[in-house]
Amino acid sequence: MTGTTHTGLRPADRDAFLQAMRRVANSVAVVTTDGAAGCHGATVSAFASVSADPPMILVCLRSGSRIAQAVASNRALCVNVLAENRPDLANRFAGRHDRLIDDRFEGISVVRAPGAAPEIEGATRFAGVVGQTVAARSHSVFICRVACVGTGAQAPLTYLDGAYRRISSCIAAPDGAAVRG
Amino acid sequence: MTGTTHTGLRPADRDAFLQAMRRVANSVAVVTTDGAAGCHGATVSAFASVSADPPMILVCLRSGSRIAQAVASNRALCVNVLAENRPDLANRFAGRHDRLIDDRFEGISVVRAPGAAPEIEGATRFAGVVGQTVAARSHSVFICRVACVGTGAQAPLTYLDGAYRRISSCIAAPDGAAVRG
Repeated sequence: MTGTTHTGLRPADRDAFLQAMRRVANSVAVVTTDGAAGCHGATVSAFASVSADPPMILVCLRSGSRIAQAVASNRALCVNVLAENRPDLANRFAGRHDRLIDDRFEGISVVRAPGAAPEIEGATRFAGVVGQTVAARSHSVFICRVACVGTGAQAPLTYLDGAYRRISSCIAAPDGAAVRG
Repeated sequence: MTGTTHTGLRPADRDAFLQAMRRVANSVAVVTTDGAAGCHGATVSAFASVSADPPMILVCLRSGSRIAQAVASNRALCVNVLAENRPDLANRFAGRHDRLIDDRFEGISVVRAPGAAPEIEGATRFAGVVGQTVAARSHSVFICRVACVGTGAQAPLTYLDGAYRRISSCIAAPDGAAVRG
């Protein structure tokens, strides 16, 4: 089998990697920031919990991007995990409407406080400050201490195979665990 | 409102953080490793894409855990994103059957090659080596170069609100994007 190893895997060039990553589901999150470097927001898919005690998260951003530069300078950020009924916000903060609007925050229900990153209403929010920044080739990993959280009422918008999707009902509780929600 | 900031957020103590994180959906992945430190596998939820060129991923593991020690020593790992019909494997590699079985890999369809991390058949797989390890309080972030990938045929198993779930049908394609799958 050409291009296939004996274990059934393919060498991970860019296209093969992206094709495999299409089969991984992620909650869609918008990273926002405000401060001396200005206010900005961008949709990201690479967001992960690091630890609960203390509460820490990380996001990966392309190093030269406007959002990475703003977060690196402002240090304060908010990760807004979008509700399942807001694919419009995912498109907006992915820059897909940038030619039509002057400001990505225009007309959106956002809570703003001086010196804090904007919070998108209805999203599950993790607000905090950058603790460590790790360079990883073209990208930077921002490891952040979470100071405040807000829990959205709805299930999160999810991205899989190039489309926005909903989470469906429960398959199974983990063995020995109680299920809520 | 006691315990609530003026922006509607709550201070992020451990419980508030975990409650908010329940509202974030993640694909369920099993990290496997093999080498001088032995063969091991464990279910994780903190897995993210870092970059596509070169292909890089990261996983966060509790620093003192057996899986973190094995990955730190072996350097080779495989992230296996489980198919939606395999909550049994998620439970198994979360250690929920450890009192019933001698070996978490017992009776499971796994591809093994000398010196390589075991690959779980049917999963979407990212096999590679650890490039950087970043200490983040109780956890370690392993940033890995991906050498090989394999794409599972099924949608991924997803975890939300304490239960395993399926991804349902498409809500919307991103504006201006073609949808596959």
